[in-house]
Parts: sequence; structure tokens; C-alpha cells
Amino acid sequence: MAQQTKWVYLFDEGHKDMRDLLGGKGANLAEMTRIGLPVPPGFTITTEACNAYIANGYRFPEGMWEQALDALKEVERRTNKRFGDPANPLLVSVRSGAKFSMPGMMDTVLNVGLNDETVHGLIRLTNNERFGWDAYRRLIQMFGSIVMGIPDEAFSEAMDELKKERGAKLDTDLTAEDLKELVTRFKRIFKEHTGRDFPQDPYEQLRLAVEAVFKSWMGKRAVDYRRATGIPDDLGTAVNVVTMVFGNMGEDSATGVAFTRDPATGEKKFWGEYLPNAQGEDVVAGIRTPKPIEELAREMPEVYQQLLEVRDILEKHYKDMQDIEFTIERGKLWMLQTRAGKRTARAAIKIAVDMAREGLISKEEAVMRVTPEQVDTLLHPQFDPQAKEQAKAEGRLLATGVNASPGAAVGVLAFDADTAEEWGKAGKDVIMIRPETKPDDVHGMIASRGILTSRGGATSHAAVVARQFGIPAVVGCEVLEIDLRKREVRAGDVTLKEGDVVSIDGTTGEVFVGEIPTVSPEFEKEQDLMTLLTWADEITARPDVRQWPEDKAGYPTRGLQVWANADYPKDAERARRFGAKGIGLARTEHMFFEEERLPIVQKMILARTPEEREQYLAQLLPFQREDFRGLLRAMAPYPVIIRLIDPPLHEFLPSYEELLSEVTEMRVKGITGPEREEKERLLAEVEAMREANPMMGMRGVRLSIIMPEIVKMQVRAIFEAACLEKKAGYDVKPEVMIPLVSHVNELKVIQTELEKVAEEVMEEQGVRVDYKFGTMIEIPRAALTADEIANVAQFFSFGTNDLTQMTFGFSRDDAEGKFLFEYLERGILPDNPFQTLDVHGVGKLIDMAVYNGRRTRADLEVGICGEHGGDPRSIQFCHKAGLNYVSCSPFRVPIARLAAAQAAVQDLRARGAEETYVTEAVTA
Amino acid sequence: MAQQTKWVYLFDEGHKDMRDLLGGKGANLAEMTRIGLPVPPGFTITTEACNAYIANGYRFPEGMWEQALDALKEVERRTNKRFGDPANPLLVSVRSGAKFSMPGMMDTVLNVGLNDETVHGLIRLTNNERFGWDAYRRLIQMFGSIVMGIPDEAFSEAMDELKKERGAKLDTDLTAEDLKELVTRFKRIFKEHTGRDFPQDPYEQLRLAVEAVFKSWMGKRAVDYRRATGIPDDLGTAVNVVTMVFGNMGEDSATGVAFTRDPATGEKKFWGEYLPNAQGEDVVAGIRTPKPIEELAREMPEVYQQLLEVRDILEKHYKDMQDIEFTIERGKLWMLQTRAGKRTARAAIKIAVDMAREGLISKEEAVMRVTPEQVDTLLHPQFDPQAKEQAKAEGRLLATGVNASPGAAVGVLAFDADTAEEWGKAGKDVIMIRPETKPDDVHGMIASRGILTSRGGATSHAAVVARQFGIPAVVGCEVLEIDLRKREVRAGDVTLKEGDVVSIDGTTGEVFVGEIPTVSPEFEKEQDLMTLLTWADEITARPDVRQWPEDKAGYPTRGLQVWANADYPKDAERARRFGAKGIGLARTEHMFFEEERLPIVQKMILARTPEEREQYLAQLLPFQREDFRGLLRAMAPYPVIIRLIDPPLHEFLPSYEELLSEVTEMRVKGITGPEREEKERLLAEVEAMREANPMMGMRGVRLSIIMPEIVKMQVRAIFEAACLEKKAGYDVKPEVMIPLVSHVNELKVIQTELEKVAEEVMEEQGVRVDYKFGTMIEIPRAALTADEIANVAQFFSFGTNDLTQMTFGFSRDDAEGKFLFEYLERGILPDNPFQTLDVHGVGKLIDMAVYNGRRTRADLEVGICGEHGGDPRSIQFCHKAGLNYVSCSPFRVPIARLAAAQAAVQDLRARGAEETYVTEAVTA
Repeated sequence: MAQQTKWVYLFDEGHKDMRDLLGGKGANLAEMTRIGLPVPPGFTITTEACNAYIANGYRFPEGMWEQALDALKEVERRTNKRFGDPANPLLVSVRSGAKFSMPGMMDTVLNVGLNDETVHGLIRLTNNERFGWDAYRRLIQMFGSIVMGIPDEAFSEAMDELKKERGAKLDTDLTAEDLKELVTRFKRIFKEHTGRDFPQDPYEQLRLAVEAVFKSWMGKRAVDYRRATGIPDDLGTAVNVVTMVFGNMGEDSATGVAFTRDPATGEKKFWGEYLPNAQGEDVVAGIRTPKPIEELAREMPEVYQQLLEVRDILEKHYKDMQDIEFTIERGKLWMLQTRAGKRTARAAIKIAVDMAREGLISKEEAVMRVTPEQVDTLLHPQFDPQAKEQAKAEGRLLATGVNASPGAAVGVLAFDADTAEEWGKAGKDVIMIRPETKPDDVHGMIASRGILTSRGGATSHAAVVARQFGIPAVVGCEVLEIDLRKREVRAGDVTLKEGDVVSIDGTTGEVFVGEIPTVSPEFEKEQDLMTLLTWADEITARPDVRQWPEDKAGYPTRGLQVWANADYPKDAERARRFGAKGIGLARTEHMFFEEERLPIVQKMILARTPEEREQYLAQLLPFQREDFRGLLRAMAPYPVIIRLIDPPLHEFLPSYEELLSEVTEMRVKGITGPEREEKERLLAEVEAMREANPMMGMRGVRLSIIMPEIVKMQVRAIFEAACLEKKAGYDVKPEVMIPLVSHVNELKVIQTELEKVAEEVMEEQGVRVDYKFGTMIEIPRAALTADEIANVAQFFSFGTNDLTQMTFGFSRDDAEGKFLFEYLERGILPDNPFQTLDVHGVGKLIDMAVYNGRRTRADLEVGICGEHGGDPRSIQFCHKAGLNYVSCSPFRVPIARLAAAQAAVQDLRARGAEETYVTEAVTA
Repeated sequence: MAQQTKWVYLFDEGHKDMRDLLGGKGANLAEMTRIGLPVPPGFTITTEACNAYIANGYRFPEGMWEQALDALKEVERRTNKRFGDPANPLLVSVRSGAKFSMPGMMDTVLNVGLNDETVHGLIRLTNNERFGWDAYRRLIQMFGSIVMGIPDEAFSEAMDELKKERGAKLDTDLTAEDLKELVTRFKRIFKEHTGRDFPQDPYEQLRLAVEAVFKSWMGKRAVDYRRATGIPDDLGTAVNVVTMVFGNMGEDSATGVAFTRDPATGEKKFWGEYLPNAQGEDVVAGIRTPKPIEELAREMPEVYQQLLEVRDILEKHYKDMQDIEFTIERGKLWMLQTRAGKRTARAAIKIAVDMAREGLISKEEAVMRVTPEQVDTLLHPQFDPQAKEQAKAEGRLLATGVNASPGAAVGVLAFDADTAEEWGKAGKDVIMIRPETKPDDVHGMIASRGILTSRGGATSHAAVVARQFGIPAVVGCEVLEIDLRKREVRAGDVTLKEGDVVSIDGTTGEVFVGEIPTVSPEFEKEQDLMTLLTWADEITARPDVRQWPEDKAGYPTRGLQVWANADYPKDAERARRFGAKGIGLARTEHMFFEEERLPIVQKMILARTPEEREQYLAQLLPFQREDFRGLLRAMAPYPVIIRLIDPPLHEFLPSYEELLSEVTEMRVKGITGPEREEKERLLAEVEAMREANPMMGMRGVRLSIIMPEIVKMQVRAIFEAACLEKKAGYDVKPEVMIPLVSHVNELKVIQTELEKVAEEVMEEQGVRVDYKFGTMIEIPRAALTADEIANVAQFFSFGTNDLTQMTFGFSRDDAEGKFLFEYLERGILPDNPFQTLDVHGVGKLIDMAVYNGRRTRADLEVGICGEHGGDPRSIQFCHKAGLNYVSCSPFRVPIARLAAAQAAVQDLRARGAEETYVTEAVTA
């Protein structure tokens, strides 16, 4: 006879790594059995059997049923009971168990094996008539509704009716006799709905229940769920058949759930609850209040002690916090389930760190146990959850928008940047509200606690700036009608005026009227997180991370560093506290928008002669030098990449439309005189500078080539700053970044000129500093010709915001306003490419550029400074692409450090590298 | 003794394929010697000697001078004269001769070998005292100015002075005695300028002359020229030392130049002129009028006969029309030079075709002999050159701008599109003049003979449209001040009014006041060109063109076809006459701009409900259907690629700025009422549709996905048209092109919807047509993910205009207005990437897309429809990239056919394939 497929596994035949075949539940029941924990005997029918059943036209595959019967025989032997035996009946539960838990799957049928005869055996054995009839009516009800598809109301209505007849309030008020009557009525209902009697044959009950589990795999809800979450259809579900144990057999019985550590705080303390004399479903029903697990120590000290041992065994074995279900039947403990327990962000971090300290897991594993999102959650102020619920109950939820920058903020509404800045400086907590924001609103935004807009998406200007500065923001809150003239905002029939208090939740997108109390963490005080991130950095710096094939010239053999984008010294300081190892992007033009500087900048732009322009540039130089001194000093001895001016000059001037309106008005009104002339001249200037597509126009290196005076001033300021700091004892490392290069010749021309300025300044100052010149790679052509560009540039920094725009050929502003969200909703794009790096398109360019760039210059420093630098999935890609660092907003540095380490661990594990363990615990 | 480098070649030691070593002149002198033509004995010092001289610190390489002296000995032996022999002196000329002729190189020193003694020998031998002194004074003058760098004026002024003293008018009025005196004075001048005596040692003369040639290779003008033209510095120049022969030894002597065929018409007739009793420089000086070569038949019949034989030998030998120089010394013919003769475009074509017919060259060679630019020149009307010169002499040249679209045009100025259209339809020849043009000016442009703008570059809207329609255009003529209100244009102190006549030359960029007569060719009557292009197509279609390596899946094994871009039936007809094998791009939106349609289009855009929109679309449908019927019919059975609507909808509405001005004016004036309301509404609508970067906004496939009604109407119109034409007996092949795709899912979504419409229409019409759906590849991401996109698209068409913009990250309009021309001038970009495809960047994307696309779909049809499709260098790239076709404006189709064939020939030759010869001549 040919070897037959094994469709059925007794619990002691499987183990925890057989999730694919036995499902999650089955694998864990098998594992617990294998390591000697008290699991009721049972067996699992495999996921393969399910697939074969479906493929086979909804018929069991050959041999499966026979194997199940054999397994059942073995269970009978072990329990010393017999299935269908009126004298000593074996009862079983039938439960589904796929690899991933999944809504829409058939759950559980209990008490399979009961019938008109065996019910009496059960009564005799338990000496409890009420219990026996209750068990039987439960079987008919569950079997009827779950296996046969009878609406559950048919049963619950019949029960209610009986209770009315008997004058009973609670189910428990029904007597054994009543329940016996209920069994009769339930059997009638069963017949009415199915046209057949409730099956008295226990084997038929079992067969139908198993089939029902298999069929539910292809049920609409399960299929929809799989479609939505990307779980493949061919996984199938397993079926677990488990000997029934009863927690409701008297005061020496109980049922409960527990976590091996506190799931809220992560503390290493046993945490759970139980109900004496109850079944699992009673706990769920919430009719009685469960007792804390500590009481069990008093009520059943031996069982409690046993449970503590089980807890230790499970944690040591699974090396993770477990969520367990147990039942105590007449003083005997039975384990019904174990699985990794869900936990809060804080708990996740504490548990990972503690377990590593306990020697249970490696540091690598600890790092893998925490998600970057959990770190994110922990770092932003949050509303007190109860207070928030209460506010909702009071109808104070005003609107919900896009959750653009996480965290909670409370403050008074300010309708423009100047007001926000003024109030903010005066010590008020401000929420700045605008239809949308622009670069010259930034001074108000950074003075605010939160930002609220009615237009724009998750990557609008408001959202980007908010994330950059870690300010909570809700954007695109379209229901808000903002009236800037009246300085009020309406939503439905609520009207708020400037100065009114609101609370915004940037994590959820909610906006509330009035104040909600917040809880605010402090990074340095999050000891566990600090420890975890230190480990993360250690792992990332392991010399065996990323051993690339030899043909990949110059690839680094250490993991990704995390740098930060910071324009001001205070951001740099914060970035450093958060663990940044460099500044990947300092934008010099933000400095131009500051109040006292903008008028000089405008005069410089409108200068009629180079001499006049030089004069205003000379006025700007000291400002820039001071900015750079602060940045360089804050980061020494780490590198600071300073990007030379990037935006088109017209961004610094009043808008054309505004000027056109003003001038038209003056013309129509016949106003003459110097003011009119001035406006006319300004209008003409701005008109001459207008561009059809400013993003693709005269900016970046193009501007520098045509008008090199500005960048020469900037480079002079950078090197004066660097030399002064060097002389003051700081080991500064300025790196000058030239933006928007598309052809190596652009870089050649301007870099040569600027290097001269750098040398000149160092000569003047009589001191030399380490420096680099490099370029952003943000234009597809630059990526395509990286081999040529690396001949000149000493470093590359991928500006993935612009690179994404150019590669997709859509501008972020226009796309988000018009079609991007519909694209995401309809699944035309899998992710917002401005949040998560588009690996297929943009990623291909990055791969090419890194590879070809390093072939030209093996020690090319390569990083990314777009918003993607703080996105965990994008960071994983950056690791694979062989980048030296990712640079992100200071507030995302901790997240990025974790994500970088996780990428490194995946890499180490793929190559079977050894992991590291905490040693201080051993030495202490 | 080690083998010494051979630095010197006697003429009979070289041949014509040694241009690298002997220079062009030396190689041809050697070749003529080798095939037995009468060349005065001489030798060539190699280009390698020149390089070694320079590398050696301006010293002759070891052995060179000795070899030169040996060669000179051999020349003495052959001429039976001796260098420096007072009795029988050998005189030589020293001439430079690089591989390519190059301005700035030292030219020629004649009569080297004359001195105070040998001059008497010359006089004795020639029995002509005047001749002797004249030869001597010429040597001193040439040697002084060319070799020693004495300003030539020093000599010419001395000569003028002497003529004044002697009362002589012409040089020839000077007597032998006078010339002897002149020698004395020239020697004095020589000494004054150089501080030394004129060298009497013939060997020193020779050595200095050779060194002067070598040095001139590194002279500033020569170096600049090489920089500008890309000729490498290390080619070096050769030096030719040739025995002097004299055409001025009496009436049996003469000198002349000739072409083996007529260089103006290409006719196979000997064409040239000569001067009896004269030297070469006399012909150049133009003092005496040369005689036509035919007269030589009468004057020296034997020599003439010999010349005819030489002509036959040279043509048969060189297989090309030759430009020759000869001298007759006392009845003996000497050949001094032969080289491929310059010719007009018309002559080039005729000569190539005739020579192929004569069996001299293959068809492939004939195709290689004509440049695409020559074809271009031939196809555009041109001004009569003499009339143009005269107009310049009369001061009628008004201005010079960018030569945007070649050809000559004469007409009256019209200052707006409506006037241009009205006058054009009334039969007037119109030159439309605007500061710049916009899409809604097209109706006026196509009604005009020529277009003139004061702003924009070679790829501005005006330029692109003009080339598209073959209308001559001069753009960016910045000196013109166009006053649209006064309807006049000023340039300096000239003012022209609307209706005044101008002539514009789109080939040169010149603008003239008044009329200049033109000459206008007709394509079909250019018999030779027609023949040549037929051969070109034959070659392109050879099955052995482009045999690609096996891993390049699906590469075509035939050359590039040429298709045309055409939006209207009349363009399609023209394209077909010009030899197009398909329409590669029909832009449907141009049709929307037509006068009677635009109002409907605008209503459709502003519709408030889908129903309202459908109603206006239903009105547009018949228009579009008629457009498509005409196109499909004109091209049947060739394919017609119709691109669905591409531009953003706001392009069809009035401009925001205009509306803003109008509304502001109404507001200030307090105008109320329905007109104001209407304008306010329109302003609000247009404002809502504004985009920061319209090129990267809501257009193309994005628009189609969000608002599919428009493209559904278009596809319905296409298939209704196709079915109707099919039923009328035309084998139509519509291909529907979806623009601006960046992600395969965009295509999946919309193509599926549109294919349904197509099937629906064919069902309704009861007929099926062959069709394809495909996409433009004009976004970098589409090129990067071509493997995915080819799963859906049946064809790719590279929109290299947008692809170039996105790849470089600059918008054409903004770049050309602001920095592109400076980039070109400074050499930052080697070419305008909007004219010649950027092979390193954009080309890399195209290569990837073709390769990956064909790996997915081996029969993927791939072409290019950007402006580059008509650019010969870009066409060569398209051949190498494996494209199926290039599509260009109808007027460039002949040029493209030739360029495609030339790419094919290069390919065939690289593989040593056999060439084809005309057979009809043999059979006839």
C-alpha cells in the first residue's frame, strides 16, 4: 500500500513551528502537550486537508476521516472515555485554527458528542442534572446556528419565551427541568429550519462540524478579509478537536484568561482574571465580574502555584509574553490556549528589554519585538483616553481630518502666522488654523502647539513642516469653513472664534472643542526605550552587517546610520539628543524667510546691478554665518550637510496674483504717485520671474549657475562659521550640498567656483576644516548618470520628495489636491509614494545610482534626506540599497534607529549570523 | 641599429587610406601618384612627426630631418634638379595637411629654395627675369608673414609705395627691375621685423617652414576650432613638400580648378575654370577673370583631353565627385590636389543617384552620400540668394532671430490669430506676428505663410507648431518691440504696421522689410530625391538589418520605419505623399480648440453634473468622429495612433490672470448684474482648477481616470469612425494611445473601461476592425517599469518631449526662457536636449524600457513621437535602441527616411553585409 498523506496529528505529534500545517492554535496546543503542560487530549486536522476538501468538490480527501477516527480512538484511550458511550461519554470541542487569526471563520462548537442518551451519562458522571441539560441545549444551539446556519435569534427568542413563561429573569434562574424543556424546543426549531432531526449520531455531529469549519474558509467574510489583507487563499484552515473540560463543575472549578506579564505596562507580574464555576463563554458574556488572578492564590493555592509554573515554562519556552486560556475542572488545571499577547507600545518596549536582560532573548530579538510605530506612539503627547471618550460623549468632537503629524495638542486658535507667533512668544499655547500653509507661515507654525488646516493632504506643506518639527497636525479637515476675514471657523452649527480653545489629535485626526488633558512623555526618561535604541545602534554598527557581493564595489559593511534634517541649532540639539549621527539636510532658505531678513532678501533679488546685489548679500552674510555656527557646533564632531539655496527666487516675493489685483485696483481708481509706481515696478519684476512650472524652473543649481553671487555668499558664510568654530575647539565637518543637478557639467562648473571660495576663506582664517562637496540626487537624470556625477560629487543625498515627483511626473501639491487620494482609495497606487518609497520605480533609480556612483568613487557617502528617511518600510529599502545613512526629522530619529536595526537583523538572520546577548546581567 | 620610425613618405610610398598619417592632402597626392597621374615629385612628413615635435619640446624627432633630406635627394633625382643649385635649382612648396581641413592652420609657402643665387638660375632657366624676381619677392613675403609672423601689411604697403613711386596701377605694371627693387625692400622689412637676414640657405628655409607648420597646429585659432568642433588635439598635421611647377611660364602654361561634375546641379559634366599664364594665387586674387574649362579644349586640346582622362580616372577611382587643382607648365599637365568636392544639396542628391546608376557606388553608398540636412534644404522654399544679398545691401535686413522652422516666406503682417486666419482664408499671404503663441493661436498660425515672434526659443510653442506644419518661422527675435494695441512693430528706427510686407527666412533666422522672391520646390517633382528615398526605404527594409543578440528578446530584424505626427486629414495626406508608413501621433485636443467647438468644450468642462457633461460630449462626438474618419481613411491600410486627451482642462478656459484683472476692475467700479456674476463664477471655477505645476498635474490618464466621460466619448468616436470606414472599404487600423501613464494600474483601470466601449461600438456597427491599445512612455517611472506596463499596453510610444522634461527635471518653457541657452553657450549641455535626444540620460531610460517591455511582450510595437523623431542624430539612436518606427512632422518624413536608412547602412557595414547595386541600368 502506498504511503498515505498524513491528514491528522495528535497533539503530541506536532510542535509550535507547524503553524502552516496545524494553524496557530493547533501548533500551540501541540507544543504545550509536547513540553508536558496539561492540555486536554485532542488532535488537529491539517490545513492541507482543508485545501484538499475544497479542491475535491467539498469532499474529505481519501483517508482523512479514517485517520480522524483513529485519532479519536487514541483520545478515548487517553481519557478513558468513549465517544457516544452513554455510560462514560467523551465530549469534544471543534475549533477552527488558521495560520493567522481571521474574522469570518467558524469559531467553536462545544460539547460535541452529546445526544439524548449520552446526556444522561454526563448527568450521572457529574451528578448535576442542570449542568447536563444546559450542556446539551448549548450544543444544539451552537451546532444549529454555526454548523447548520439557523439564525441564532430563533434559539434566543425561544429561550426568552421560556423565561417569560417561567417568570425567570436570568438564564441561571432556569431549572434543570426548564433546560430539558428547552432542549425539546431547540430540537423542534432545528427540525423546522433544516427539515431534519438534530443528529443523534455523535460521529455525524463531528463530521458536520469539521465540514462547517472547512466551508467557512471560503465564506464571503473570510474571503473578503483575505483580499483586503493580502492573505493568500491557499493557506487553508486547520480543525482542532479537543476533549471537553468543564470549569462549571462546582466551586473547585473555574475558567480564566491571563497574561504572563502586564500587557499595559510590561511589568513582570502575572496578570489575569478568572471566574469560579463558569465556562469560557460566561467570561466573554460578562454576566459576572471576574476576579483578579491573585485571588486564586487564596482560593486554590495549589492550582495557582501550578499556574505560576506554567507561566514560567511558557515564557522560557516561547521567549515572549503569552496570553493564555485555562480551565480548572474539579481542582485540575487544563491549558486550552497560548499565544503571544497583545500589548501597549510601552509594554512592548519594556518586555523586550526585560526579556533580553533576563537572558531569554538576544538583543537582536528584543529589537525585532518592538515596531517603529510603537516607538512613535510613545514619543508624542497623547490625550488621556478616558477624557477623550468623555469629550465624545459630550458631543465635543468637532471634525475629523487627515492625521498628518502624530501627538495631541491643546491651545487657542490663531488665524495667521503672525498672531500665532506673537501669542506663542507670549507663552500661550496656540493652535494655528489656516486653509493651508505656505513657506512664509513657518515662523507662526513653529511657535504653535498644533496645526489645523482645511485643505491639503498628508504631505501638504502644513503636514511636512509639522512632522519636521514634531508638531501635532490635522490637515485637510474639509468640513471646516475658515473665514479669515471674520477670523472664525464653522463646522455644522458650531462657530469658533480666534482665541477659542480646541484640542487636536494628530494621531487620529480628531478635532475637539475645548480642552482635553494630555499625557506627555520625555524621551530621556524613557529608560527602556533608551536601552533598546542603544542596542539598536550596536546592532546596526556590527561589522558583519551587509556583506555584499564583491562585484558591488565600495558597498559599506555596516548598517544604516540615522541622521536628521535640521535647519536651526535647536533642532540640531534635539536631533542629537534623539541619537542622530549627523545632519543630512540643513535648508538654508528657511533662514531667508525670517522676519528681519526677508526685506533684505527681497532687495537683493530685485537689485539692478551685481554691485547692488553684493551689497545686500553682504548684509545677509552675518546672519547665515551665525546660523551655521550654531548648527556645526551642535553637531560636532558629526557631519552637517548644508544645502545651498534651492527654491526659485520668486518664492521670496509677494505673489503675482496679489500684486495684479492691487495694481488693477489702483489703475481703475486712477491712483498715481510713487506707491503706484513702486507696485507697478514690482508687478513687472514678478511677472518677468513667473514660471509655468516653477518646480521645474529656475532654481537649485540652475539659479546658482546663472546668479552665483548668492551661493558664493552662502559658502563663504559656511566656511567662516566652520573656521571660527574650529578655532573655538569644535571638530566641525561641513558638507556643502548643491541641489537639483541633472548633468555632471552643472556640478563641475559651480563646484569649482565654490571650492575656490572655501579655500580662500580657510586661507584668510588661517585654519583648515574637513569638508566635502556633493549633490542631491533628486532629478531622474542625475540618478541615471550617477557614474558621471560621482566623478565630481563626494557625496550623494537622495532628495526623494522631488525624485518621487519627477519620476512619477506629478507634483505633490497638484496630485494630492486632485487625484492622489482617489488613486489610493481605488488601489491604483498601493501606497502614497510621498510617504513610503516607491521601490519599483524610484527605488530602481536609487539602486542604479548607488551602484554606479560607488563604481566611480568607492568611498562615496550616500544617504537619503527626503521624508522617506523616517518611514520604516522605506528605511528597510535604504538598508538593502546600501545607503550609509537615512536623514529624517529629529522626532523620527528614534523610530529610524529602530527600523535601521531591524533591517540589519533581518540581514544578519538571512545569513545565519550569531546574535548578541546582554552580558551585564551575568556580571552583576 | 634599431628600426627607426618612418617619419617621411615619398608620394609613391603612400595611398589614400593613410589620411591619419599623411593628412588629407598628402594621402591624395600619394594616391594620385600611385595610380599614375602626373603629380610633381614630393614627399610628406607625417602627423606623428608633428605630435612628436610638440611632445619633444618643439624639436624634430630623432631621424626626421635626415629622412626628409633623403626624400629631398630622391626628389632631386627624379626632377633632375638640385635644391640650392644656382645652375638648376629645385624649388618646392611647403603645405600643411591635417586629416580634416581646419581654419587657423598655416597654409602654404611657395618657391622655397630661392635665394640671391638661385634666383639667377631660375631666370636663366625660364629666360624670364620678371618671373624670377616676382617668384623671389613672393617667397620673402610668404615666408616673412607666414613663417616669421611679420604683419602682411608691412609687405603690401611697401608694394603700394613702390607702385605709387613708379606710377603703376596694377602689380603687373611693375617691371623686372621694379620687382628686383621690391626684393631688396622686402629683405629690409624682413630684417627690421625679425632682427635677422632673410635666410639664404634653402635648407634653413625648408626647416623653418616645416616647423612653422607644426607650430601652427597648436596656434590659438586652430586649438579653438578643434575645441568647438570636437576634433582631438592628438591628430597632428602632416607637411607636404612638393616640387614647384609654374603655370605662369608663358602662353603654354596655365593653372586651374575643376569639379568632375557640376557642383551646383550635379550634372555629369566637367566644370571648371582656368587662367592661362598664371599661378594658383592669381586665380584666388581674382585680378583676371578665369576662362571656362571648355575653352581649354580649343586652346590646348591635348592637355584638355588628358584632363578629361584624369577626371574619369579620378571618379572611377574615388567613386565621388572630385574637386581638383592643376597646373600646366609649358604644355605639361601637373595635378596638385584632388578631394571630394563640395556641392549644393540638389547636386549631392543627383550625383549620388547618378553614380549609383552608373554602377560606381552601391545604393547604400548613395544613401550615405547625402546628409539629412541637404534633403531638408531642398524641401523648403528658399529666397533667391542674389535677391537676398541685394536686400541686405539696401539695408532691408530688419532683425535676426532664432531659425526655428526652415524655409522662406513672404507676406503681410497680422498681429493676431483671427486676423491671420481671416486674411489667410481670403487668399492673402500672411506672416503672423506675436510676442509668443499659445494653443488657441493655432488656427491663425496654420492659415499663415510664416510665423514671427519676439520671445521663445527653438522649441517654443510657435517653433514646435511651425515645424509641425512646415511653416517657416523666426522666433525669439528680441530686437522687435511688438505693440499689440497700436498693432505695430518697431526695430530700431523702423516701424512696421499691420498689413506691411515682410520676408522671413526660417533657415537663417533673418527678417527683411518688403518682398524677396522665393524659389519653391515640389517634392514629387524632385525625381532624384524620390529615387534616393525609395532606395533608402529598400535598405531599411532589408531583413538583415539589425540582427540582435539572442538575449534581446523580440528585437525587430528590420530597420526603422518612418511615421508622421498628424492631427488633421490634410496633414495625413501630406505625410503619406512624403512616404510615412503610419501616423504615430494624432493629438485629439487640437481639435477641441477649433472655433466652433471651443464653446461646447468649455460648457462641457464647466458642467455641474455628469448628465450635463454627457450632453455636451454628445455634441462633440460627431466632430471627433469626422476628424477620425478622415485620418483613418487617409492612412489606410497603415496604422493611426490616436492619443486621447492630454492637456489639463484649464487650458481650454480663459486665463486666470485675465479673469482676475477683469473681475477686479468690475469690483472696483462697482459693476453688478449677470455679466459680473458670470465672470465671478468663471473666475472661481478657473481658480479651483489652477495648478502649481500644470505639467505635472491633472492631465493625461489622471484626468481620464477621474473623469472618464471625455475619453469614453473619444473612443466611441474613434471606433464609430473606424467601423464606418471599414464598411466603406478602407482597411483601417486605429490604435488608441493613453498618455502620461506612470503606473501600470492606471492603464489597467482605464484601458479595461475603454476596451469595453470599443467592443460595444463594433457590436453596434456589426463590423470588426483591427485595433490596439497602448500608452505613451513619457514619464520616467513608466520607462523604469516598462516590464509591468507591457503586460497591458500593446504598444509604447516614447513621448520624448515630456520624457526629456521629466528626466532633466526642467520645463521646456521655463528652461528656454531662463537658462537653457546659457547652458548651451557655456557648453554645460552639449546639445539642446529638446532637439537632439540626450542619449546618456533619456536614452538610458528608452533602452531600458524597450528591452524590458519586449521581454514581457515580444511583439511590442515601439516608436517615438516626440520632436526627436525628426532629428537625424536622434534617429540613429532610435535605430540602435531597436525601435520599430520614428514619427515626426510630415515635412520631416523624407529626412527621417534618409536618416533611418543611414543608420541601417552603418549597421550593415559594421557587420560586413553585402551592399546592393542598381540593376535596371544593366538591364536597360
